[in-house]
Amino acid sequence: MTDDWLGKVNWPANGLIPVVVQEESSGRVLMVAWMNREALKRSVETGEAVYWSRSRKKLWHKGEESGHIQKIRALYLDCDEDVLLLSVEQMGGIACHTGRQSCFFNQLTNNQWVVAEPVIKDPAQIYGK
Amino acid sequence: MTDDWLGKVNWPANGLIPVVVQEESSGRVLMVAWMNREALKRSVETGEAVYWSRSRKKLWHKGEESGHIQKIRALYLDCDEDVLLLSVEQMGGIACHTGRQSCFFNQLTNNQWVVAEPVIKDPAQIYGK
Repeated sequence: MTDDWLGKVNWPANGLIPVVVQEESSGRVLMVAWMNREALKRSVETGEAVYWSRSRKKLWHKGEESGHIQKIRALYLDCDEDVLLLSVEQMGGIACHTGRQSCFFNQLTNNQWVVAEPVIKDPAQIYGK
Repeated sequence: MTDDWLGKVNWPANGLIPVVVQEESSGRVLMVAWMNREALKRSVETGEAVYWSRSRKKLWHKGEESGHIQKIRALYLDCDEDVLLLSVEQMGGIACHTGRQSCFFNQLTNNQWVVAEPVIKDPAQIYGK
């Protein structure tokens, strides 16, 4: 199997590109994460989202702790070839570490950020302790 | 009017955060662009998307040449406070400089990037000459 498709990506100097994650069923934008070449390769090979954790500085198989795995249904590259869009099936219906469906739960309302989305499951329950 | 909401954003060292742009009516993810503090301020003040062009190194009022302005319907900040999601009305129904609805038109298919979306309008017509 050739990896030509990996070379088509316009990898920046730091090796990381942003990845928009959209839930296939609802159309909701769930999160943005980052991939390096290895993360993208593993994601495609396994069919499950693997990111590069910038805080932990290592590969991160999304859902490895929470069970909230993302099954990849489609993968798109943008016109500048430096941003990815993943269409996923979100296991558990929760993408955010706060226990919400989407990470984009702060909505600007009258010049204030207002939490606009409920917690579905307590993070203490998701991650044990 | 206070700008406290601008300070809530977790601006990185280079001052630029990624912005996911989603079409309100279709749910399509149209593009990802970048904003600095000034771009975000102007976007909110005018109700139209203003980005920071990394290639031209200046503020970019999306649609200033093409007419494909993005009217902001809602604005969200993620849990880490370093990525924005814009829900927009896309004037002309075209976000991409290639004349397509979305910039994410390359789909990975059998380990090849395949163009999966038609050109709606010839860029030569969009941008003159």
